[in-house]
Amino acid sequence: MSVVGKEEGEEQQVVNPWEVSAGKGGIDYDKLVDQFGCQRLDDALVARVARLTARPPHRFLRRGLFFAHRDLNEILDLYERGERFYLYTGRGPSSEALHLGHLIPFMFTKYLQDAFKVPLVIQLTDDEKFLWKNLTVEESKRLARENAKDIIACGFDVERTFIFSDFNYVGGAFYENMVKVARCVTYNKVVGIFGFSPEDHIGKISFPPVQAVPSFPSSFPHLFSGNDQLRCLIPCAIDQDPYFRMTRDVAPRIGYQKPSLIESRFFPALQGENTKMSASDPNSAIYVTDSVKEIKTKVNKYAFSGGQDSIELHRKLGANLDVDVPIKYLNFFLEDDNELEHIKKEYKEGRMLTGEVKQRLVAVLSELVARHQRARAQVTEEMVDAFMAVRPLPNMFG
Amino acid sequence: MSVVGKEEGEEQQVVNPWEVSAGKGGIDYDKLVDQFGCQRLDDALVARVARLTARPPHRFLRRGLFFAHRDLNEILDLYERGERFYLYTGRGPSSEALHLGHLIPFMFTKYLQDAFKVPLVIQLTDDEKFLWKNLTVEESKRLARENAKDIIACGFDVERTFIFSDFNYVGGAFYENMVKVARCVTYNKVVGIFGFSPEDHIGKISFPPVQAVPSFPSSFPHLFSGNDQLRCLIPCAIDQDPYFRMTRDVAPRIGYQKPSLIESRFFPALQGENTKMSASDPNSAIYVTDSVKEIKTKVNKYAFSGGQDSIELHRKLGANLDVDVPIKYLNFFLEDDNELEHIKKEYKEGRMLTGEVKQRLVAVLSELVARHQRARAQVTEEMVDAFMAVRPLPNMFG
Repeated sequence: MSVVGKEEGEEQQVVNPWEVSAGKGGIDYDKLVDQFGCQRLDDALVARVARLTARPPHRFLRRGLFFAHRDLNEILDLYERGERFYLYTGRGPSSEALHLGHLIPFMFTKYLQDAFKVPLVIQLTDDEKFLWKNLTVEESKRLARENAKDIIACGFDVERTFIFSDFNYVGGAFYENMVKVARCVTYNKVVGIFGFSPEDHIGKISFPPVQAVPSFPSSFPHLFSGNDQLRCLIPCAIDQDPYFRMTRDVAPRIGYQKPSLIESRFFPALQGENTKMSASDPNSAIYVTDSVKEIKTKVNKYAFSGGQDSIELHRKLGANLDVDVPIKYLNFFLEDDNELEHIKKEYKEGRMLTGEVKQRLVAVLSELVARHQRARAQVTEEMVDAFMAVRPLPNMFG
Repeated sequence: MSVVGKEEGEEQQVVNPWEVSAGKGGIDYDKLVDQFGCQRLDDALVARVARLTARPPHRFLRRGLFFAHRDLNEILDLYERGERFYLYTGRGPSSEALHLGHLIPFMFTKYLQDAFKVPLVIQLTDDEKFLWKNLTVEESKRLARENAKDIIACGFDVERTFIFSDFNYVGGAFYENMVKVARCVTYNKVVGIFGFSPEDHIGKISFPPVQAVPSFPSSFPHLFSGNDQLRCLIPCAIDQDPYFRMTRDVAPRIGYQKPSLIESRFFPALQGENTKMSASDPNSAIYVTDSVKEIKTKVNKYAFSGGQDSIELHRKLGANLDVDVPIKYLNFFLEDDNELEHIKKEYKEGRMLTGEVKQRLVAVLSELVARHQRARAQVTEEMVDAFMAVRPLPNMFG
């Protein structure tokens, strides 16, 4: 992979589906929005979501963690008129265990499914991981199924959710759409969007249409037959935006609707905001398989603190919240707005110490992870089969 | 498409799956064999085929019309040891009606199937035609099915033959193999083999693995499950060689056997040897749908003659057989070796006139086309369904 925009210098931030690296000051999300050409998700839009769904906005929305969108307003317009849409999200199954960052889009998607009462398709790109990682087909497929269990543990409604792996599902109407998309995208175009090089294998060049076509309802005839213009909303992290820029460019040329997007920031590594978490460094992330003891050790040992070096100095100067990882994690996972504001204020003004904030974080994460582990333990092979069965969902809009 | 080897000058012959154009003297097949790196199919190998199959070699073999191969000797070695193999051929369904050139590989494949008693897979690349031609998916699929009827009319054994269209069959084990092949081939490599340009769409770049993987028995689990090392023999015109050069390069890297090939010359256009026939010029070819009257008109009006301009001159100088199209067509379709030799001798020495040779050709082609039309008329939709059903073939080696 060559980098997007590398000609502008070494410290250029790089964000694409396979690489996220920040310049010196962390990811510049404003710049990203301008560069990608998406729209900012402002307070008015959040308020509109809350009003239309008659429930408080998810904390990821309240706190600007989902911060950008493409045509979300159009989805809300049609919802307001009584029309429906469907949700599409996914995961590249490259590792056995998910970390907390992997859960973000699924937690948010579950909220959207519950709030809007709409069907959802979840793509597991086992083919992508085979193409990019040194995995066998069998291992990629096995990881897809294992990851499906973690996804199911997030609480999705089997009456409204279709989970599929590419190796199992590509074919038929889905393949037809892949070929339709591919015909509309030149090699130069994918190089511009994804930064491929001529020495990259053609599997990489062939892949973008695979991630594009779940945006089109006709890729799922068992769900949306006769409803080819149904709109699609994609919750994802903003590094996936290039796929859907390409998809939105192609959609009208093949007679389809452009998908809308709602896009999140990256969940930071324990070591700080400058990178996306890496599955290859176990100490960069809290895994959903971690024990309370491991969570405690990781948070206490690795979570970058914005507090001062000595208690005296801390009492005097307070913490720098902009770089403090425990605060960032609480921002994602502590539901109570008042408590969060209280902690931030006390910590910032030096009355609360790093150790105390970390202790609260360990409690929040331990509860979250324990809840996930309990739910995961109850996911049977039969449940996986049920979610992944190619079947109609008769009550998906009910 | 840019041309293969265009840097060597305008008169360079160009042969790839989408373009065949000769230099001044017609296609130089010797040069092609050297350039592609395949092997010449010599008399000894033809004699060996005849001995092993205990039947006279097909006239296409006797007359050097199938003239090149890759590892055909290995297929014969294993056949001699009592092992089996399977045949793979195909067609890009870009037109409603087939011309005589399209029938060549199928006539020859039927002979191979009968002689060796082996199973056969026939790929209809409707996806390729969608990608290269200005067709809809629906029209490509319809043409695939119509062409399947002409193929069935060639007399294949439904107990040993699986016909499939890519749009209908891509998926599962076939898709897994596509992705495995794609991971082994760089963009630079496909540019070198096929001459793609950076402004070509990625559908073209994605396609070569689709034509590669029917070479691998694991792409057909309903036929060859548990027999992943079964060897494959591909009868085709030599313009398809680039696909299988690529396939043979990849095969050992993914644990598969290289396919063997047996490759034909091009069937000439009525206007002469210098080009492959073009479906877009109806007067360049005899179609299997032509009436006797049309055949007569086309042969008399368009078939390039090597005879002299006046009867007097012809009686004196005789015909130039090297450029005479009626003789070339008889070479393909007149079964009787003695009669063919007699005609060639008489014509060459001026005792037979062009009109007489053309009259014999009209009779031969009219009979061939009438026989095809009768067989085609008896192909029902149910027969197409039977050949295209994804099913085991329990007696395919019987």
